[in-house]
Amino acid sequence: MKILIIGGHGTIGKKVVARLSQNHQVIIGGRASGDLTVDITSSSSILAMFEKTGKIDSIICTAGTGYYGPFYGMTEDHIMPGINGKLLGQINLVLLGKDYLNPEGSITLTTGIAAVHPARNGAAVAMINGAINSFVLAASQELKNDQRINAVSPGLVEDSKDRYGAFFPGYNLVPMEKLVNAYILSVEGSVNGKILKVYS
Amino acid sequence: MKILIIGGHGTIGKKVVARLSQNHQVIIGGRASGDLTVDITSSSSILAMFEKTGKIDSIICTAGTGYYGPFYGMTEDHIMPGINGKLLGQINLVLLGKDYLNPEGSITLTTGIAAVHPARNGAAVAMINGAINSFVLAASQELKNDQRINAVSPGLVEDSKDRYGAFFPGYNLVPMEKLVNAYILSVEGSVNGKILKVYS
Repeated sequence: MKILIIGGHGTIGKKVVARLSQNHQVIIGGRASGDLTVDITSSSSILAMFEKTGKIDSIICTAGTGYYGPFYGMTEDHIMPGINGKLLGQINLVLLGKDYLNPEGSITLTTGIAAVHPARNGAAVAMINGAINSFVLAASQELKNDQRINAVSPGLVEDSKDRYGAFFPGYNLVPMEKLVNAYILSVEGSVNGKILKVYS
Repeated sequence: MKILIIGGHGTIGKKVVARLSQNHQVIIGGRASGDLTVDITSSSSILAMFEKTGKIDSIICTAGTGYYGPFYGMTEDHIMPGINGKLLGQINLVLLGKDYLNPEGSITLTTGIAAVHPARNGAAVAMINGAINSFVLAASQELKNDQRINAVSPGLVEDSKDRYGAFFPGYNLVPMEKLVNAYILSVEGSVNGKILKVYS
């Protein structure tokens, strides 16, 4: 398969790339590095990327973050970058990318545990994750030509323990291999319209 | 209680107003009519509204719609009005409104069945509803002074059968009284952080 992964240099993305590269042709899209550079907050940048990839069999997005910060003091200005990036960016990857996807191809987005178990300070991220989860449910009913779409919803991944662990008291650490498996299941399996929760 | 309801002239809102007015002081905020006019796509308009209401005991939003239309052909331009209105508008009602809410006050937002059972053509609406549901979960953990927040998630309400029924084949009609009860439960009850699903 010819697979495009946006965010393939990130903490999660690079592990997914390592696994998929064993059996597939992997093209990495990234903001600053990668085979192709892309700014997912810009629909024209996304479209330019797909013009370069041509037809592909799978689109994966592990890119995009949201705002973590105190609820008292949170404003629209804190929230908008995540809406333009992880939310609209992933939606545009679907709306624009489906036209470059081969029949039986798949799209795999990334959400997170905050959609259902938000941590303190995580209201903006919860909102984005919940939005993408529901969008995936709807999009899976709409895609033609046996194309599929799923979301992988990670908990706190073990590789992020040092950096983020203190913000998620009581959250189980997710083994990275288990998380990578969810992306493999979405790409190589037959699941469609699933929120693949990888929480423990 | 002194209750502000945004969208109080809409199909659902006017029925909620009718019930609440029996026991409470109700202030209606609307885009074009009402006791106060407000454009929920504008944070400054929302803030100006709260400056006029002063301290209140309850905020309800039944305003805001999203785009229904073919998935093939859907673009960011179709989606943005709903993001700026029903999504960001409701979030701003919380982020700005909480400072005008009395202790033990409540906020009640409106989502919809599309978050979990999206109909054809409903991907944009599903996304917005899922976003608000998850935001409510997170916000309910953050609010201080015993303030509460819930979302009411209506299915296809009986009053909308003629107008929208054809777009929702197989969806049960929700009695309006049952839907209004969910708003009453959120305002007068003690529930917090709940998605009050009113589907049948």
